[in-house]
Order: sequence, then structure tokens, then C-alpha cells
Amino acid sequence: MPASHKILECVEKSSWIRKMFEEGILRKKKYGPENVFDFSLGNPNLEPPPSFNRVLNEMVNDTRPGLHGYMPNAGFVETRQSVAGYLNKSNRPNFTAEEIVMTVGAGGGLNIVLKTILNPGEEVIIPSPYFVEYNFYLDNHQGVPQIVSTKSDFSIDCEVIQEAITEKTRAVLINSPNNPTGKVYGEDELKELGSILSHYTKKFGSPIYLISDEPYRKIIYDGVSVPSIFDVYNESLVVTSFSKDLSLAGERIGYVAANPDMSDKKSVLAGLVLCNRILGYVNAPALMQRVVSDLLEKSVEISTYKKKRDMICDSLASFGYDFIKPEGTFYVFPRTPVEDDVAFVTALQDENILTVPGSGFGGPGHFRIAYCVSDDVINGSLPGFERVMKKYRG
Amino acid sequence: MPASHKILECVEKSSWIRKMFEEGILRKKKYGPENVFDFSLGNPNLEPPPSFNRVLNEMVNDTRPGLHGYMPNAGFVETRQSVAGYLNKSNRPNFTAEEIVMTVGAGGGLNIVLKTILNPGEEVIIPSPYFVEYNFYLDNHQGVPQIVSTKSDFSIDCEVIQEAITEKTRAVLINSPNNPTGKVYGEDELKELGSILSHYTKKFGSPIYLISDEPYRKIIYDGVSVPSIFDVYNESLVVTSFSKDLSLAGERIGYVAANPDMSDKKSVLAGLVLCNRILGYVNAPALMQRVVSDLLEKSVEISTYKKKRDMICDSLASFGYDFIKPEGTFYVFPRTPVEDDVAFVTALQDENILTVPGSGFGGPGHFRIAYCVSDDVINGSLPGFERVMKKYRG
Repeated sequence: MPASHKILECVEKSSWIRKMFEEGILRKKKYGPENVFDFSLGNPNLEPPPSFNRVLNEMVNDTRPGLHGYMPNAGFVETRQSVAGYLNKSNRPNFTAEEIVMTVGAGGGLNIVLKTILNPGEEVIIPSPYFVEYNFYLDNHQGVPQIVSTKSDFSIDCEVIQEAITEKTRAVLINSPNNPTGKVYGEDELKELGSILSHYTKKFGSPIYLISDEPYRKIIYDGVSVPSIFDVYNESLVVTSFSKDLSLAGERIGYVAANPDMSDKKSVLAGLVLCNRILGYVNAPALMQRVVSDLLEKSVEISTYKKKRDMICDSLASFGYDFIKPEGTFYVFPRTPVEDDVAFVTALQDENILTVPGSGFGGPGHFRIAYCVSDDVINGSLPGFERVMKKYRG
Repeated sequence: MPASHKILECVEKSSWIRKMFEEGILRKKKYGPENVFDFSLGNPNLEPPPSFNRVLNEMVNDTRPGLHGYMPNAGFVETRQSVAGYLNKSNRPNFTAEEIVMTVGAGGGLNIVLKTILNPGEEVIIPSPYFVEYNFYLDNHQGVPQIVSTKSDFSIDCEVIQEAITEKTRAVLINSPNNPTGKVYGEDELKELGSILSHYTKKFGSPIYLISDEPYRKIIYDGVSVPSIFDVYNESLVVTSFSKDLSLAGERIGYVAANPDMSDKKSVLAGLVLCNRILGYVNAPALMQRVVSDLLEKSVEISTYKKKRDMICDSLASFGYDFIKPEGTFYVFPRTPVEDDVAFVTALQDENILTVPGSGFGGPGHFRIAYCVSDDVINGSLPGFERVMKKYRG
């Protein structure tokens, strides 16, 4: 065997998204890139804000020795202090640098959290629809996903979560604002979730962690706010990145923040730092640590994404598409008018519209549109969206 | 349990090096940083070369859209092409971008290679002394290290490698120039190793990979050259980084190069790219990919490290220390005059000299000095090195 059995299988499984990607390349060649409407990837089309270029230039011209070398595995203390200070503005104000670990994006952050807490075979409950990479991240550390449904408006169903809890449950992993649905979980549902987890943590004598993956926290609309899990439950960790709000997805910079009131904080934090090192990340990229430290309050122009959301949602609604209007992120997750979401996505493909079937997010009967694209792509796609719906609805 | 059993155990195990680190902090506070001689870490003290700052400035001022966003998981095609072109100058000239995967340092590179090839319980043969993190990297992917001895001059002992090969052997992992010994493996030993691995690859009908970890390739002295494993064996991969030769350890930038003549190249490369994604790295940091692309021929001033090597080696020799003069890296790995290397390292600590016991590298009865430090640290340490040796040798 050239590659391990599992990796060969994963390469095979991944091939559906790869086929889509290759389909896109073929179609762009055949029909011209301006005639292919690619909504398949969550790669922000907005450039980082001007403040990013200013700070980056400052940092690059700072030639004090050691700035590109190793630092503690948790990151530069100054950066971690800034993050703590930033969190203290919107949370209970007791974060210090100690509770912050700078990471290689949220992907790196989730992996160090999961490796820290999971014994082989232990379970993580994930409300669905959800970001598919979570399955891989759990499998990396021999964890087992317990996928549970959400309510019809994609809000958390605390009852089904409670039913899914066993003595093997180590964590509940949520993602709010949610990829792919755009849902923001409300304070009441989080409070209820916190009190359920408190109950079982006490019952089993071992913490069930609440992990919130929040790279879209700043990308919200219509005055919605994203409640903090730190306020509802002590055994909690937030994982986030600057990939979406500063459009730095390729720079791989993010962090993990552990609740200052966590019951066994010291060993969890020691685990996070160790895992940052032994998973081969070692530390978050040095230059970007220093850059984001000065940009914690900044983001791309959210109103631009809101405009795009409204453009696509208004049109889809007028064509008869059925969807929950996203409160955040740059995704919308409409129902497909037929059960077979792959067939529907293929029909869109025939109109040179590239989207992702909901099955890929544990949400069959839906499809995901990533509207972090130019207005031209949105406008160009609308006739195709209309034709396909007409074809299905007659 | 707050953290997983394994991680708690690792945190505990790691505590010896952490204690050393904390000891250093305490001593620097107590005696003044100028009176503590810290040779414990391989963090280059030389700054990146001036060309780095020039190229970094250029890249930062290139504001074409998308340069900080996601790119293919393997990295920017332009960077991969540059690396291929660079390798073609010193190897059989048939690399293309396809065989290059940009990674989060060599740590990231080793992890994606190991995850790609290892089924649970499969073995990797590692000549000792070796870089201790390899044990963690193998364990991340449920691989089992088979540590084998080297000859008295730290060169590869092909006979013991051959004896260690079983049907479970998936790879031999070498590190040349070697951390901690400074040894560079010669062409003849690599050829012999290649022919042994060819034999067993044929016999078992499944490739045994040769993985060479080469971040110190450019840090060599006295006209020594580092032979390429690509020339001696087809089932081979090189993992490297710009951490040491460009002093960019904190920026986490490196790459994996797979032999263009590898037998099942396509599936191995697909595995590497998938693992880059699913281990949460996603891709190597975007800005640094573009920077190193223009600096492949560059390095810090190697003669400066040579001068440091000669300073420390000449003095140690005159004090009666017994060691193999390093041909590369910025480490020297002398024998301890007593069996108990931890006791000897502790005696050095009492002189405010911080080093690492050889036991930590699978080389008990030795200790590692990382001489990537200022000349003042070297000069300041010499009386202490002399006193401790006198104490032991009488």
C-alpha cells in the first residue's frame, strides 16, 4: 500500500468536492471564467481592510532581533495579552494571557483542543448541519462524532443533545454563526445547553466541554448579537481565527481562549500548549501574531456582505426558493425542491452555477451557497437559479 | 479527567525540559541574564539575511487581490514551481510543482508524511541519537518507533537497520545533518541503505519509504556536502523548512518534496495534500510561501556558525571533552565523563550553563550544546565547562 488504508479511503471520499473543483476549472476553461458562477468555496472575496496593510508594513519594518524566531509555543505574550484585553471588553473581564493560545487558524485550534481532551473512542456531540471537516478533526484524535439534529430554524435542540449524552461524551462542538446555515445561536438556547452540561458534568464527575468555533463572530447582520458561551458555562473554550473577518484565510492565524473559570484550567492549558507543539504546528506564524494583535477591533466591511446576502436572498425568494435568512456568515442554505440534493446541485452545475450539496454538511435536502463572491457573480447567476427552480417547480 | 490520559502523561514527561526552561528563567532573574549561558534551544541567534527583509517588503507591498486568502492546499503553484526548479539544480532534474507540498514548517511536513503512510501499529525505523519530537509525531498517527543505534561516529549502521525491518516497517526516518550530533550521512551509507530498502520493498511488495528531515542541509562546514536521497532510492521524501537556514523558525514555513520517480506517487501526493488540510494546517502561511520562493538560494552567514563551532569545539577539546566534531547543524554532542548524563547536565547547571542531556535524544552518556548563541555566551561559559570537567576528571 502506498498510502495508509484510511487516507486512501479519505482521498476517495473527498473526490466529490475535488470533482466539483475540477468541474469548475473545466467549465471556466470551456465557457470563460466570467460565465461560471462559483459559490462553492468559503474563501472571502473582500481584501483585508486598509488597516491590515498599514500594520503589516509597520511590523515588517520592525527589525528588532528575534521577531521571526521561536517564541513560547502558546505565542508571543504581548499578542496573548492583547487578545485577553479584547475579550475582557465583551465578556466577564477576567482573561489574562495565560488563557490564550495562538494557533494555526481555527483548524489548528480545533485540533489542539480535541487532542488535548479526547481519549480514544470518546464522543463529541455536534449539532447538524455542520462544517464537515469536524469529522476529520475528530478522527485525527480517535474521537467519535455524535451528530444530532437541530430544530427546523437550525437553532440548537437541547432535548436531542441531552438524549445523546453518555459517559463517553467529552464535548459538545458548536459553530455560531453557523457554516453552512448562517444561524446565530441565541442566549436562551446557550443557557439551557450550559445548564444541561453542568448537570452531566456533576453527574459523571468529569467535565463535558463546550467548544464554540467562532470565525464568523463579526460577520453578522440586522443588529443580531452573538452571545458568549463564557457567560453561560465554565467548562468552555472558544476557537476562532482571523480568516473570515480580516480575510486572512491563507495566513493561518487564530487562537483558542479557555474560560478563566474552567475547573481544571491548568492541565487543559498545559495540554493545549503541548499539542500545539507536538502536532507539528509548534506556534502560530510569528509575523501574523504581531499583526493581528493590533487589529482585534477591525474587520472587513460587513455591510458589503450584507448587501450580497440581500441580493441573493431577495432573488432566491422571488424565484421560489425556501430558506432561513442567514443572520451571519456569508452562506445561505436553501432547501432543494427535490429530496436528492446532489441531483439539484448537478442541475445548477449545468447552468454553470457551482454550489455544494447539503449532504456534505449533514443537511441533505439542502444546498450551500457561499456568497463571498463579486456582485457580478451573483448577478450573473440569477437567471440560472431561476431557470433551475422553474424546471423543478414547473 | 480534564485532559486525555495520554496528554496528561505527555505534559508530565515533558516537564523535565520545562523544568530546565523554568530553571533558566529563575537563574537569569537571580544571577542576571548575562551570567546564564543558555545552550538548551535550537533557536537560531542569527537574524534572517538582508535579502529576506528586502523580499518581505516587496511582497507586503504587492496588493494584488487574494494573496492572503486560501490557495490550493499544496500551496501557491508559483512557489511550488520555484522549489521544483531549485531542487532540479542539485538533483536529477525532473521535479515539477506537482511533487512539492508547502507545509507549516518541517514539523507540519513530517506529520503529513506520517499520517499519509501509516496504518495503526506500523513501524518507522529511526537511527539514534535523534530529534525527540519524532516520537510524538509517530504517536499522533499511531505509528511505532523502532529506534536503532548508529556507529561510534554516529554514521548509519545499515546492518542494524536491516535487522530491524519487519513486514510492519513503513519507513526509515533519517535526519541529516543530524540534530543532536551534527553528523552528515555520506553517499556510500545512503546508497547501501537505499539498496537494502529496495530489496525489502520488492520482497514485501509494498514500499518502505525513506524520509529525510533536512532543515540543516545548508548549515555545513569544511567543504562537506549533503548527498541527496533522491539519487539513491526512488521511494523517498525530503522534509525541510526555512527555520534554520533563513532563521524563520517562528514563521512556520517549509515543504515536502516527493521523489518524482516514486512508484505510487499520485496516491501519496493526494494523501499529503489531504493531510495538510485535515490535520488543520490547511496550507502553509501564504505570505511566507511567496517570500521564501524568492530566497531559495539564500541563507544566513554559515561562516558565523562555523566560527562558533570552532570556538566551542576547540575549547571543549582543550578541557578534555570527548566528541565527534560536527560537520553541520549548530549542535555538538559530547560524551559525558560519567554515565549519568542528567547528573552531568545538572553539574553544568550549577555553573549557570544550560544544556540538554543526551537521554532526551536517545543518546545517554552524552549532552547537547546548541551553539546558535552569541559569542559572549560561548566565551562566558568556557570557564564553567572547564571547571565541571576538572571536577569529574580530577
